Amino acid sequence: MAPDTDAEDDASFPTDYEIADAAETEHIADVVEPFGLDREDLELHGEDKAKVRLDAIEETVAEHEADGKLVLVTGMTPTPLGEGKTVTTVGLGQAFNRIGKDALVAIREPSLGPVFGVKGGAAGGGYSQVLPMEDINLHFTGDLHALTAAHNLISTMLDNHIKQGNELDVAVNWVNWPRAMDMNDRVLRETVIGLGGDVTGVPREDGFILTAASELMAVLCLADSLADLKERVARIIVAYDGDGDPITVDDIDATGAVTILLKDAIKPNVVQTIEGTPAFVHGGPFANIAHGTNSLMADRLASHLSEYLVTEAGFGSDLGAEKFMNIVCRFGEMEPDAVTLVASVRALKYHGQDMWPPELDELEDEDVAAVERGFENLDKHVRNLQQFGVPVVVAINRFPGDTDAEVQAVVDHCEEDLGVRVSESTVFSDGGAGGEDLAEKLVDAAESDSDFEYLYEADVPITEKIETIATEIYGADGVEYHGDAEEDIERLTDLGFDDMPVCMSKTFHSLSDDPSRKGAPEDWTLEVTEVYPSTGAGFLVVLTGDVLTLPGLPAEPAAAGMDIDEDGTISGLF
Amino acid sequence: MAPDTDAEDDASFPTDYEIADAAETEHIADVVEPFGLDREDLELHGEDKAKVRLDAIEETVAEHEADGKLVLVTGMTPTPLGEGKTVTTVGLGQAFNRIGKDALVAIREPSLGPVFGVKGGAAGGGYSQVLPMEDINLHFTGDLHALTAAHNLISTMLDNHIKQGNELDVAVNWVNWPRAMDMNDRVLRETVIGLGGDVTGVPREDGFILTAASELMAVLCLADSLADLKERVARIIVAYDGDGDPITVDDIDATGAVTILLKDAIKPNVVQTIEGTPAFVHGGPFANIAHGTNSLMADRLASHLSEYLVTEAGFGSDLGAEKFMNIVCRFGEMEPDAVTLVASVRALKYHGQDMWPPELDELEDEDVAAVERGFENLDKHVRNLQQFGVPVVVAINRFPGDTDAEVQAVVDHCEEDLGVRVSESTVFSDGGAGGEDLAEKLVDAAESDSDFEYLYEADVPITEKIETIATEIYGADGVEYHGDAEEDIERLTDLGFDDMPVCMSKTFHSLSDDPSRKGAPEDWTLEVTEVYPSTGAGFLVVLTGDVLTLPGLPAEPAAAGMDIDEDGTISGLF
Repeated sequence: MAPDTDAEDDASFPTDYEIADAAETEHIADVVEPFGLDREDLELHGEDKAKVRLDAIEETVAEHEADGKLVLVTGMTPTPLGEGKTVTTVGLGQAFNRIGKDALVAIREPSLGPVFGVKGGAAGGGYSQVLPMEDINLHFTGDLHALTAAHNLISTMLDNHIKQGNELDVAVNWVNWPRAMDMNDRVLRETVIGLGGDVTGVPREDGFILTAASELMAVLCLADSLADLKERVARIIVAYDGDGDPITVDDIDATGAVTILLKDAIKPNVVQTIEGTPAFVHGGPFANIAHGTNSLMADRLASHLSEYLVTEAGFGSDLGAEKFMNIVCRFGEMEPDAVTLVASVRALKYHGQDMWPPELDELEDEDVAAVERGFENLDKHVRNLQQFGVPVVVAINRFPGDTDAEVQAVVDHCEEDLGVRVSESTVFSDGGAGGEDLAEKLVDAAESDSDFEYLYEADVPITEKIETIATEIYGADGVEYHGDAEEDIERLTDLGFDDMPVCMSKTFHSLSDDPSRKGAPEDWTLEVTEVYPSTGAGFLVVLTGDVLTLPGLPAEPAAAGMDIDEDGTISGLF
Repeated sequence: MAPDTDAEDDASFPTDYEIADAAETEHIADVVEPFGLDREDLELHGEDKAKVRLDAIEETVAEHEADGKLVLVTGMTPTPLGEGKTVTTVGLGQAFNRIGKDALVAIREPSLGPVFGVKGGAAGGGYSQVLPMEDINLHFTGDLHALTAAHNLISTMLDNHIKQGNELDVAVNWVNWPRAMDMNDRVLRETVIGLGGDVTGVPREDGFILTAASELMAVLCLADSLADLKERVARIIVAYDGDGDPITVDDIDATGAVTILLKDAIKPNVVQTIEGTPAFVHGGPFANIAHGTNSLMADRLASHLSEYLVTEAGFGSDLGAEKFMNIVCRFGEMEPDAVTLVASVRALKYHGQDMWPPELDELEDEDVAAVERGFENLDKHVRNLQQFGVPVVVAINRFPGDTDAEVQAVVDHCEEDLGVRVSESTVFSDGGAGGEDLAEKLVDAAESDSDFEYLYEADVPITEKIETIATEIYGADGVEYHGDAEEDIERLTDLGFDDMPVCMSKTFHSLSDDPSRKGAPEDWTLEVTEVYPSTGAGFLVVLTGDVLTLPGLPAEPAAAGMDIDEDGTISGLF
């Protein structure tokens, strides 16, 4: 989503679409050439989008050292206002290049589903966007479509297996592989399929999830080669048999065909920011039932190409950053050299408000006391990140309505109370120039000694992993297990899946598991309702409440206001 | 499907994959350059695939005369053996260029669904293939995926409208817009959606169709510009209200967003044949509930670029060719200059067999008498085409097992009994060289006087249109209406839709509506069961039996035998 900034509301400030439309782009081959990728290394999709060939990645990795610094962008607990994490990520990439450091950006690629629901793209905003924003928010290079097809091929093969005799004894009430669609089509959440008699198969309950929520998306983003992708696909569990033994993609003979469908999707996409910084926009897994960051393939390639890679994790430090550290860095054998925590005056005021639901209008007026009451949320996120042993720089993403006194209060708090680096950023309005100070402070931080460590070892008991995150990151007093959660853990331990990291699915609206609690909630217990394995991705998903894996459209969907004229000019998309 | 030729069974003859793999391709920009398209006119998808920009098409149309000759490829009644229509189309394009006539090829793009069912691609075969065959049979340039997304956006918007208050009074039991998937997933044919309570919407019966069966596919293939596409999308009927009045895509405010999703899919794709002939591979509508030929955009562009365009229609003369003449030529204001009717010795023997189901093994041995008994099927197809006033050339697609005596019997029959041009073609084994004689005869035919006319005027009553096709093309004695068919016709006439051409949905296995009847059945009556409007496409669909719009996978799906190695080499796809 583009941040909901005052600048956007200001009639004199151009819209994202106008800025993007006025931007001059270079041929994508010319954009990446200074970073060491030749035209032959690319598979062009038009002039401004390309995929990087797998053999080019292997060559780059073999020929160049992986000495690039990794800067992770995360945020405080998200508010409905938008804090501008993607904008900061894109702007920072531009800023690094402006201060003489070669830098690349890596962000997630958007899902088509949400585009038609609420207005706003997922390619940054203002003068810190990736281009071509229209294509990126629509079909882009087809990765999401390939994933949808691959996901549904598994479903088709499974139901066909059941219909053709069910030799594997698939338990039709224990199928764990729904169907997928990249569309916010809520009526598909719960369905009955296979009706119409013997010819069409065996009737059973089923449902659809958004493609971004498919385990295949997580697999694509964690695989480090085509061979690894295939191995991960093979071991995905799609159902259980009558004895409770797992049935995998490989058991239903779908590994090869599914991998074939993903052979291009695994190649990182490269585009450019509005200032010509190359940006990898590749993969977009959910940040609740999955790990929520762009592909390891893109990160891996970038670390061999530039001095700095700026990448983004979903939601706040409790979700995206925790998973980036404990899951992605572990699988990718990498570590962040510095972390930027994006904060905003408005988000602080939001967390400093006593009322629920919050009154967004109340946040417009200067209110330093409310900002200060919101510090407890910021502070907890800073401490969370410091637990991983990496230096933190707070980025105050300044919005036009923020007053100097409010911003100064945040700066003072960070420097004096927390003792962390802090910088005001105006990359939305000013592009890279608005992030130079932030970039300088990140260079300083990244070049200092860091002492990165995971929060837990992967081979400790499942409950210990969950409890470590609950108490040390979320601030809970402990964990309670409900429903079948304890049975799940016992079964997964028996199956030998207990040595995988855990992927927590928790509301992003609060550090706690109650979306209405702001700030840094205390005196509460995390309630775990289910634990299931994503064996292809390589983690155990821990549910702590209802997860919406297929959103719906609002009463007035953005799609209803979209148009395209006879020359192809689009309106209403952003 | 690749033709099931003896050459393929012969261990010494290379497979399609081996031939494709050994072929040297040129950069697609170099392939089209001699035909007047510049690199700037293309949107590249890698080195060997491109889309043609819409403004380049407009420029070409404005600057060059549309003086290219149009050659349509059709066939006798299909048999399980495959007659090689696509192979002949591709081979003919190559042959024309060999005899000094600039020629382009235009064929349908394959649907992903069938690829995983039965082994065999849809890009020609042998030395008459279009390349890159793998990509074309997989995601290609994403057109099918864009159509799937656009189709399902309409479904989503419709069910969201119902959930959000149903202001238009949509009758939930009279929704005519199923969901779509490009996968042979039979359990989705009949479903119940919207379960799970008030939050997810209104439960109702629904079903999925293959993307190729979506009216949007027909719309894409009949639109002659982006503006026309948008107008056609707007008028598609998705449901009826409580009063029986149609509710359109425009009524649910989806026109703009759907057209945006199709803005790239409407641009024709260009690739090359194995001998470097440019081939438009664009659009692939069903040939039963739709018209079954590639896009008008591709045909229109090609007619301004080359001396000859070779294009293909689905199934036999009774289905694809009839629709090409009566629907496509009418909408596209074009006419064929010559038609090639593809026949094979084996297909003739099949139609000359007395047994049902036919014994395919029986067709292996020389049997001139069986060939001659099969002439009645060939003859009827020749007469069908002659009714449109266009010259016919019979192409005998020779398979290695055919004997000279068998082939000669067909040649003699065509020349002496029918008085039509005939040529033996070996383009599968020999590429363009194997079709030079056929090309020469088609030049001769195309340069002769033709007197093209539609079989019926669009503004005659619906029943008259149906009866004309039934009696003059199918050879029926008349038409009987069952179920609600008469009511449908009355209602459609009242709604003012009676001036559209009709699109007949009939089995392709027979000239009659009974798939078990071979040859040229007589003494039968066509049974019409339903008539419904495809207002976006601009025709009325006439059903004469069950139509399978979502196939299933066989017990041993081709997907189960597919693999890809760590270098990306695919096996089992063809």
